[in-house]
Amino acid sequence: MDKPTLQKVHNLIKPYIHRTPVLTSELLNELCEAEVFFKCENFQKTGAFKMRGATHAILNLTKEQKSKGVVTHSSGNFAQALSLAAKNLNVKAYIVMPENAPEVKKSAVRGYGGVIIECGSGVNAREHEAVRIQKEKGATFIHPSNDDDVIYGQATAAIELLEDYNDLNYIFAPVGGGGLLAGTILAANHFSDTCKVIAGEPFEVDDAYRSLISGRIEKNKTSNTIADGLRTYLGDRNFPIIKEHVEDITRVEEDEIIKSLRLIWERMKIVVEPSSAVAFAAVLKDKKRIRNKRIGVIISGGNVDVSNLPF
Amino acid sequence: MDKPTLQKVHNLIKPYIHRTPVLTSELLNELCEAEVFFKCENFQKTGAFKMRGATHAILNLTKEQKSKGVVTHSSGNFAQALSLAAKNLNVKAYIVMPENAPEVKKSAVRGYGGVIIECGSGVNAREHEAVRIQKEKGATFIHPSNDDDVIYGQATAAIELLEDYNDLNYIFAPVGGGGLLAGTILAANHFSDTCKVIAGEPFEVDDAYRSLISGRIEKNKTSNTIADGLRTYLGDRNFPIIKEHVEDITRVEEDEIIKSLRLIWERMKIVVEPSSAVAFAAVLKDKKRIRNKRIGVIISGGNVDVSNLPF
Repeated sequence: MDKPTLQKVHNLIKPYIHRTPVLTSELLNELCEAEVFFKCENFQKTGAFKMRGATHAILNLTKEQKSKGVVTHSSGNFAQALSLAAKNLNVKAYIVMPENAPEVKKSAVRGYGGVIIECGSGVNAREHEAVRIQKEKGATFIHPSNDDDVIYGQATAAIELLEDYNDLNYIFAPVGGGGLLAGTILAANHFSDTCKVIAGEPFEVDDAYRSLISGRIEKNKTSNTIADGLRTYLGDRNFPIIKEHVEDITRVEEDEIIKSLRLIWERMKIVVEPSSAVAFAAVLKDKKRIRNKRIGVIISGGNVDVSNLPF
Repeated sequence: MDKPTLQKVHNLIKPYIHRTPVLTSELLNELCEAEVFFKCENFQKTGAFKMRGATHAILNLTKEQKSKGVVTHSSGNFAQALSLAAKNLNVKAYIVMPENAPEVKKSAVRGYGGVIIECGSGVNAREHEAVRIQKEKGATFIHPSNDDDVIYGQATAAIELLEDYNDLNYIFAPVGGGGLLAGTILAANHFSDTCKVIAGEPFEVDDAYRSLISGRIEKNKTSNTIADGLRTYLGDRNFPIIKEHVEDITRVEEDEIIKSLRLIWERMKIVVEPSSAVAFAAVLKDKKRIRNKRIGVIISGGNVDVSNLPF
């Protein structure tokens, strides 16, 4: 991976994504005693950064592969992103989802043209179904986070942020499956001489933090966090990048996530999902390190059920 | 009032306000079968358009007047706006508020440097206190909506919108006290050859609608609407402008306001207050008239208690 390659990825996906705005808040700057620049992927198509990686992964398929479609398992933002990215490129998308997934998520996928394949709950069931679709349809499997093309696509959010503000000291990103974090690290390494990347992670699902210590991919025993996008674990494609280059992983408690979420909603006037609030919660917790610095925060998405808020 | 004067007002207040972004949503365009451009005053300083009029009103005072301060009665967005506008211009702001106003509103005013004068509830009590402060301190009274300088200041939101998109067919704005609506009308008349202005108003407080019919300023018997910023009535400075030039006033039911609010939150990913949702609810209701047209919507503000939502 080098800078021209990442630049090429960005140019490739540009027609299919929004260049999202970077917002600031004087009040939050005062609170942090730092200058904070929020890269607002909640305004991205399908409401999350996942659109970047999904689009890039499909664009990189051969014509033959494209004709047979793509398949993934996700009940979250990647399901919607792959569905719309595929639709934009005239490719069929099969989305393996647990049959008990919320109807609102299913209808969002259908709305973007994805074909839902229902499966039982649990990792085995969904992987089994995804393999079946690959065999039956010849569809290409695209992993939501542990896939090089997906990681390179996710890198473009931080590339844009660094194009707009090239003197950031730190970028904070949430870590769940690790695709966004690994991509952000690649962007910082190749598009800045000084910018370091810090991850925010809920204490309740601190598999990435423990993986850094043990040197191998750890999993979570529970999924008891409001940040539902961060319950997954790292993979062999993104973990080496994270292990080598991440500056730190800052863990945050659930009440810190909710406080951060509320601050962003009330002060920035934007709707973000709890996983996004984890990155800003880490900023608030790292007060000493960030004082008087210039900080980027990747607001990963804004898909949240407004009738079920923690306030 | 002419175009150069309004342009001068805009130039005068520019250093003290944000030029707020105009956002769009493909999905909401599809839903409306029109192109809708949201002028996002929820991102304005103090979270509402009121900052524009408050700043202009203070800038237009004499040096002598400035030295003695300003006074208003408001427990809503104008209280915060006048406090911050005054602070920015080194002027003292006295804000008459009912003693039972929510603590969060009082602390917001204090945070912006306003001096709170508590009064009993009811129109008489607050007017009495405001007169007392004028006499005692020599402060200049600035009405939240029925004041020429305030109206001209509020006009600048639509001026910016028309600078960005000069071919709009309609601009929709909410009507409460009438300052924003009158200002929007002035902007449309002087900065566009074709753009007409339509107001959105809750059925529950449809004083402006009834005033148009009767030809005199009507009041409301109840204040039973979620759009708490629109419970006030018109005044003798703004009503003549509205009466002569408004294209229409579209009334909306409470459930239509809530549906509009939720659509904006979930689809646009922005936090707006119910009064703002009234304007978009009117767009949704006026489907025939707006089909295939280019529509501006003034999102008036985003100050809302997220722990007390109607979803």
